[in-house]
Amino acid sequence: MKHLLSALVQNVPGVLSHISGMLASRGYNIESLAVGETDNPTLSRMTIVVVGDDHVLEQVRKQLEKIVTVVKVIDISADDYVERDLALIRVKADAKTRVDVREICDIFRAKIVDVGLDSVIVEISGKEKKIEAFIDLLRPFEILETVRTGRIAMTRGN
Amino acid sequence: MKHLLSALVQNVPGVLSHISGMLASRGYNIESLAVGETDNPTLSRMTIVVVGDDHVLEQVRKQLEKIVTVVKVIDISADDYVERDLALIRVKADAKTRVDVREICDIFRAKIVDVGLDSVIVEISGKEKKIEAFIDLLRPFEILETVRTGRIAMTRGN
Repeated sequence: MKHLLSALVQNVPGVLSHISGMLASRGYNIESLAVGETDNPTLSRMTIVVVGDDHVLEQVRKQLEKIVTVVKVIDISADDYVERDLALIRVKADAKTRVDVREICDIFRAKIVDVGLDSVIVEISGKEKKIEAFIDLLRPFEILETVRTGRIAMTRGN
Repeated sequence: MKHLLSALVQNVPGVLSHISGMLASRGYNIESLAVGETDNPTLSRMTIVVVGDDHVLEQVRKQLEKIVTVVKVIDISADDYVERDLALIRVKADAKTRVDVREICDIFRAKIVDVGLDSVIVEISGKEKKIEAFIDLLRPFEILETVRTGRIAMTRGN
């Protein structure tokens, strides 16, 4: 099953290498990983989507917490949460097809952020499934490049 | 100086650990890192912001490319590119202050994606500086939690 881990870590060299090394050695494949700053400059927040065995995950979570540079790890998969993913997609679009690409963007509230002679760059954020549905609709125009952030998540309520 | 590396890697366990390990061993601190899927299921795209010495970076880039699971690494810092970062921010907001928070969100085209009794979750995407300006304006209301994806980027034009 997929698990969404949210880890608070110290902002020092090596912490990412420790975490990813430990997950790899346990056979967990990292589907996506995002590391960003928090409001505290000494700490970073990592959101990791891993695919693996359910009942060993709790062990892995505890072992991750034993790494000295890791402050806290929570598995939020079971909670009610808000998740977001961001993608930049370069899609073929010339003078003829640009209007069709634009219409699909409008429906998904995606933004065209750059226009070239025969391609555009589109920005979209949302749930993973929304982004995938959007990419499927753009595919017939020919997708030239995709960059995605991977998911981040926050539990709802207080 | 800050460098923005865009790496195309094989989607296999261990690749992240190799890359982050090599950067850490060279003393490069990773400011942000985002790994997401591409349109090809066997490949992932990594966007890494590293802070470090300019003239060794080219060496590091070449060494990263020597890792067997790494397909290609480019330093796009010098190019003209579109960059985006995504953040979810939980900020204190009760019945009284919610309207003020909403007004700031409107100005920045940020979206309120969840409302609790005394807090809201806000989603914002854009350039790093825009997100930081937004966070600065929310700070007086008290920020309870921040999760960010780290930057992704794509060169402009064709």
